[in-house]
Amino acid sequence: MIPRDPAELVGLARVGSRTALARLLTYVESGGSAQLATAALAYAAPAPYVVGLTGPPGAGKSTLTDQLITTALKRGSFDGTADFDEVGVLCVDPSSPFTGGAILGDRIRMQDHATNDHVFIRSMATRGHLGGLSLAVPDAVRVFGAANFRLVMVETVGVGQMEVEIASAADTTIVVTNPGWGDAMQANKAGLLEVADIFVINKADRAGVRETRRDLEQMLDLGGAKEWRPTILETVATSDTGTEALWDAIGDHRRFVSGARLEEHRRRRMRAELDKVIAAMVRARIGELAHGESYEEQVSALLAGSTDPYRAAQALLDDQ
Amino acid sequence: MIPRDPAELVGLARVGSRTALARLLTYVESGGSAQLATAALAYAAPAPYVVGLTGPPGAGKSTLTDQLITTALKRGSFDGTADFDEVGVLCVDPSSPFTGGAILGDRIRMQDHATNDHVFIRSMATRGHLGGLSLAVPDAVRVFGAANFRLVMVETVGVGQMEVEIASAADTTIVVTNPGWGDAMQANKAGLLEVADIFVINKADRAGVRETRRDLEQMLDLGGAKEWRPTILETVATSDTGTEALWDAIGDHRRFVSGARLEEHRRRRMRAELDKVIAAMVRARIGELAHGESYEEQVSALLAGSTDPYRAAQALLDDQ
Repeated sequence: MIPRDPAELVGLARVGSRTALARLLTYVESGGSAQLATAALAYAAPAPYVVGLTGPPGAGKSTLTDQLITTALKRGSFDGTADFDEVGVLCVDPSSPFTGGAILGDRIRMQDHATNDHVFIRSMATRGHLGGLSLAVPDAVRVFGAANFRLVMVETVGVGQMEVEIASAADTTIVVTNPGWGDAMQANKAGLLEVADIFVINKADRAGVRETRRDLEQMLDLGGAKEWRPTILETVATSDTGTEALWDAIGDHRRFVSGARLEEHRRRRMRAELDKVIAAMVRARIGELAHGESYEEQVSALLAGSTDPYRAAQALLDDQ
Repeated sequence: MIPRDPAELVGLARVGSRTALARLLTYVESGGSAQLATAALAYAAPAPYVVGLTGPPGAGKSTLTDQLITTALKRGSFDGTADFDEVGVLCVDPSSPFTGGAILGDRIRMQDHATNDHVFIRSMATRGHLGGLSLAVPDAVRVFGAANFRLVMVETVGVGQMEVEIASAADTTIVVTNPGWGDAMQANKAGLLEVADIFVINKADRAGVRETRRDLEQMLDLGGAKEWRPTILETVATSDTGTEALWDAIGDHRRFVSGARLEEHRRRRMRAELDKVIAAMVRARIGELAHGESYEEQVSALLAGSTDPYRAAQALLDDQ
């Protein structure tokens, strides 16, 4: 029998129980008191190193993640400084009600690893977490940490604001594109430029690689000087071409963000996460507020023209 | 001399002073106490009828808006029930730091109307409004109402979540697309379907109209039965083809949302706006919170692993 108590589950997950780990991840997705208890334990453990991958559907992220898992396990470290023999993988598709098939496909493609003791793959969904996926994913990452995983990959489908936000909560963020990327990335170019540590032009055996690389370089030039200029790499994930170089590039970036920079990076991320939790808690309070009698009174007053949204909001907040 | 007092400005705007109207709109954009005083006056006046237009850059929204202004002034009413001899126009480009040129182009294209006494065109920007454009735009609409405008058009560039949110705060929302629309709209298809009352296939003299119409019809079929099935219209704005039919379609939708439905529609919108103001006020408080000493203490505790984001957020909120 698998226990229900988060503390017992963490104890079991730490010594290798995948069932215990799976249940803890379900707690995280589900919100409520079990999630709070799990978070209290998970955040007490050291954080794993997180590699985020994002890109439009069909860019080949899953195949690339597959190859990276194999390379990671083969190398066993980035550069000799951190050793791991397990990889955790979170697959996130914020728009999954509409493209559920993609994640399913990913899981099938990753099946080789799914039966591998050294890899634990999980498709994330939110079943009630108050902050949605953008909070459930960092929680899940820390659950992996509590289960002694030192490396977690977060694969996010999509290049919208939310997807990029999730992907950017990584230590190293990889944006996967294809030759002739243009349209798919255009809408959120600024956001992608902001978060990318490495650009991968996957399917680089197709025409248009040179133009895509030139476009990326130009974008980076326009973005101005940054401490770390994102690496641009070419891969053909289906034939495992370029994966070793990508792994080395991750290692380079990891060395770059080590020490004081990693500390600062994680402090900034912690602040962002804390702000999101505060906002989510406040939203929950506003939700309660919106079911009250005085809320409807204010809405009626607004429709009658006897107040404005600012006075109405202030009155409701003062009332709390 | 133009006064600075919002009440005096509203009095002047009501009798036709464009300078007074312009200053009130600046107050709305700028936030602070002048914005609050302006809102108090604006929301006391009846709301104008709002027609929202949204679509990807280059779809031809400005030319279409141009034609609609001409048609609106020529007709002077939707159907004889509401008369107007003035049209207010708000041009909104949430991503304008990156595409400022587009709005500038729009203004030049609308120049014929810009020198017309019966039309008042304004490009919106936020210079400090606590809720950003998604609150400044509804405020600006109400300022037009206080200045006796009965019809306001809101033209929003873009099809992302924020653009659609702004466009949807209209009584009739028009989504403008082109033959072969696909990619540009794909990312936020669900959002566009949700808000569109009318789909316009502009540039309908180009190839691919039939396929685009079929795609739209299929999307609407998949979306399930709704009380109002969005009208699909074809226009060629550059040659003023289809504008009269579009104006009639707006009139049809206006009749559909009249009476109890309009009341319900506006109540829902008022609730959404109130929630946004509450959220913005709370965000402002969180912002203050994030500059405090106890906030940094919690962040340090998080990094040390001695708390988790949920306990930390709760502690900060309890402390307030």
